[in-house]
Amino acid sequence: MHGSTFQALTVETLPQRLGPVAAVAERVGGQPSAWKVREVGDGNLNLVFIVEGEKAAVVVKQALPYVRLVGDSWPLPLKRSFFEYHALTRQEKRAPGSVPAIYHFDESQALIAMEYLSPHIILRRALIQGRQLPRIAEDLGLFMARTLFRGSDLHMPTRERKADLALFADNTELCDITENLVFTDPYFAAPMNRHTPELDPLVAELRADRNLKVEAQKLKHLFAAKAETLVHGDLHTGSVMVTDGDTRVIDPEFAFYGPIAFDVGMLLANYWMAFFSQRGHEEQGSREAMRAYLLQVIEETWAVFRAEFARLWRTERTGMLYHRSLYEDQGDTLGAEQALSHLIHEVWTDMLGFAGVEIHRRILGLAHNADFETIEDTGSRASCEGAALKFGRHIAVNRRHIHSLAEINHLAQSLDKGL
Amino acid sequence: MHGSTFQALTVETLPQRLGPVAAVAERVGGQPSAWKVREVGDGNLNLVFIVEGEKAAVVVKQALPYVRLVGDSWPLPLKRSFFEYHALTRQEKRAPGSVPAIYHFDESQALIAMEYLSPHIILRRALIQGRQLPRIAEDLGLFMARTLFRGSDLHMPTRERKADLALFADNTELCDITENLVFTDPYFAAPMNRHTPELDPLVAELRADRNLKVEAQKLKHLFAAKAETLVHGDLHTGSVMVTDGDTRVIDPEFAFYGPIAFDVGMLLANYWMAFFSQRGHEEQGSREAMRAYLLQVIEETWAVFRAEFARLWRTERTGMLYHRSLYEDQGDTLGAEQALSHLIHEVWTDMLGFAGVEIHRRILGLAHNADFETIEDTGSRASCEGAALKFGRHIAVNRRHIHSLAEINHLAQSLDKGL
Repeated sequence: MHGSTFQALTVETLPQRLGPVAAVAERVGGQPSAWKVREVGDGNLNLVFIVEGEKAAVVVKQALPYVRLVGDSWPLPLKRSFFEYHALTRQEKRAPGSVPAIYHFDESQALIAMEYLSPHIILRRALIQGRQLPRIAEDLGLFMARTLFRGSDLHMPTRERKADLALFADNTELCDITENLVFTDPYFAAPMNRHTPELDPLVAELRADRNLKVEAQKLKHLFAAKAETLVHGDLHTGSVMVTDGDTRVIDPEFAFYGPIAFDVGMLLANYWMAFFSQRGHEEQGSREAMRAYLLQVIEETWAVFRAEFARLWRTERTGMLYHRSLYEDQGDTLGAEQALSHLIHEVWTDMLGFAGVEIHRRILGLAHNADFETIEDTGSRASCEGAALKFGRHIAVNRRHIHSLAEINHLAQSLDKGL
Repeated sequence: MHGSTFQALTVETLPQRLGPVAAVAERVGGQPSAWKVREVGDGNLNLVFIVEGEKAAVVVKQALPYVRLVGDSWPLPLKRSFFEYHALTRQEKRAPGSVPAIYHFDESQALIAMEYLSPHIILRRALIQGRQLPRIAEDLGLFMARTLFRGSDLHMPTRERKADLALFADNTELCDITENLVFTDPYFAAPMNRHTPELDPLVAELRADRNLKVEAQKLKHLFAAKAETLVHGDLHTGSVMVTDGDTRVIDPEFAFYGPIAFDVGMLLANYWMAFFSQRGHEEQGSREAMRAYLLQVIEETWAVFRAEFARLWRTERTGMLYHRSLYEDQGDTLGAEQALSHLIHEVWTDMLGFAGVEIHRRILGLAHNADFETIEDTGSRASCEGAALKFGRHIAVNRRHIHSLAEINHLAQSLDKGL
């Protein structure tokens, strides 16, 4: 199947097509005809199969030439699989153990065979169920600091970074999705938008909010033009698989060179949405402890990210930016610390902005979150979503004037109680 | 000579080698053996020939595989000619009439045959002579606004911009020169630096200036990561040819996708250096009027740039950023004006920073300016340079707190008088 015309796999054709691929067949074991194959893709874009044989199970992910959520009226190039593969290899190198192992990549079939993570579940589902995962704050804080620092001119040889920037610049269609669906469509009556009807008055208010609309576009400008580092590009709680003891980041097909703050903002936004959605999931008991846990995860994620970023700044700042020759080598360690403070401050400020618009697009745009969508009563859902929308507006517009997570988490609690 | 191994042209070999190229031979006219060829390159990097025949004269610019200023110990790839060619074609499209016409490009010979501009002279030389050019503020203000606006996501289809970004991302060696020679080397005792000896105490002070060194690196970070638009990349007064009635921008081999503010800052920095150097050129008479002229040019250049940028914002904002669907189409013209104000404010702030470091590197780094270098008395030269260094430090470090050119031009006058 190498180099051949693209053909979507099916549960039926997969064994015969991947049987000849030694890297897959040897790992799965037994006769391909005896493999058990299930299609489990629940994302918006791709096919995902679990293939089980005598020895082990393997995941096979295949891109489709269109957006699965919408259908073939919305074509999307297969090359996103190429970008996913290259992002995964870079993430594994920069943050070892944080992503699934890759066994096989077939560019023309837009297909990646990778580690079957078990008994992992999608982090978003765990949070909806009210599960408290003990490792996510530390694991994802480290993942972000390591991938984002080590993929930037703070660490990489700049020639290598520029070549990589050029490679990923071709991931235009997926960037285009983010550019439109995250930063623009939610702020006017774009055709593919939808929202819970009870939100109509608030939605009208937000779409008439000049400061918000200017800020959203400034953030889009940052997203499009600030080519700082290789970002995951879609780091929400649906792109993380967890057990109590392990955390893995999946699905980096939106990867490109963008702002350090983007991944951080998107992840925290999804925690905040998990927080605001808890009240809609209280039929089987109070989620008070879960809410406290989520706010704690947010504070700890940022603290771990910041501490690890600072550690790397002090020990791995080998790139062309803020070079030691200007600071430490001249006995001016404080100069390097000053620059670090300024840089982290900028990441903080931009992170709040990206978080705000990510919250908005998940409630006002095309791609909604299961956190809210699984709340069946639309009145209850709108109440959760409304608090989240107000919170998103607050942090996006006031991002230059917010000092601490303690301060905004307090605001989140007040809004959640119906402020 | 197409596709053949690179060979540097000489005055002797040029007619025989370019004779067979119809685009050149027909324009020059007559027998190639009768062409008059002069080598006139006075820049740091390339060969430049003027070829005259029966009908007309043509300029032939050829890159060398090393830095001409330093010699073959510093290799530099020929592909810079490719980037120059592509930058020239884009500039001509975005700001018609602002660059020389191109007659022929040979990639393997790194050679561009282009319009011979006559009686144009290099703007820097004119300013050293004390000539007041009536058109430069308007022409260059328009050139910058048009090329920088139309090459950004404010105007271009973003796919096209991203493909172009990837193309120019390969211009690493020339970006590398700017990254090191402009933003880093001047701020420590780098091997290739030199400065007028009388400046020793001030140089020591600047190299111990923590705020300045942090700011210089923040500007380097912006330069390297803010891929907003196709910039000229080396827009100083040595890259402009002028008559009283015409202004042309040449030598865009440093072109890449960078911040809008970079070209503006570099150009104004070179006007400020021309201003500070005037006192060293007063043997043949006062340069008082020339100083006033230069400060006026600076104010007018910025005013023209801002006005044209605003006009294009209102009439050609067809790209994906700050799209009309969010503002004008919703009756919120003020929303678009608000976003414009914020964007111009950012360009202003960054422009001052880039201007400050450009002044420093021309006095402390490898590549100095004839404005100062032609002042033979080193005491007088150091006095001019010292005022410029202090001015550069002031605008770079305080760039977020400076409101107007009137304010800093007043400071320039005070420093020039020995404040």
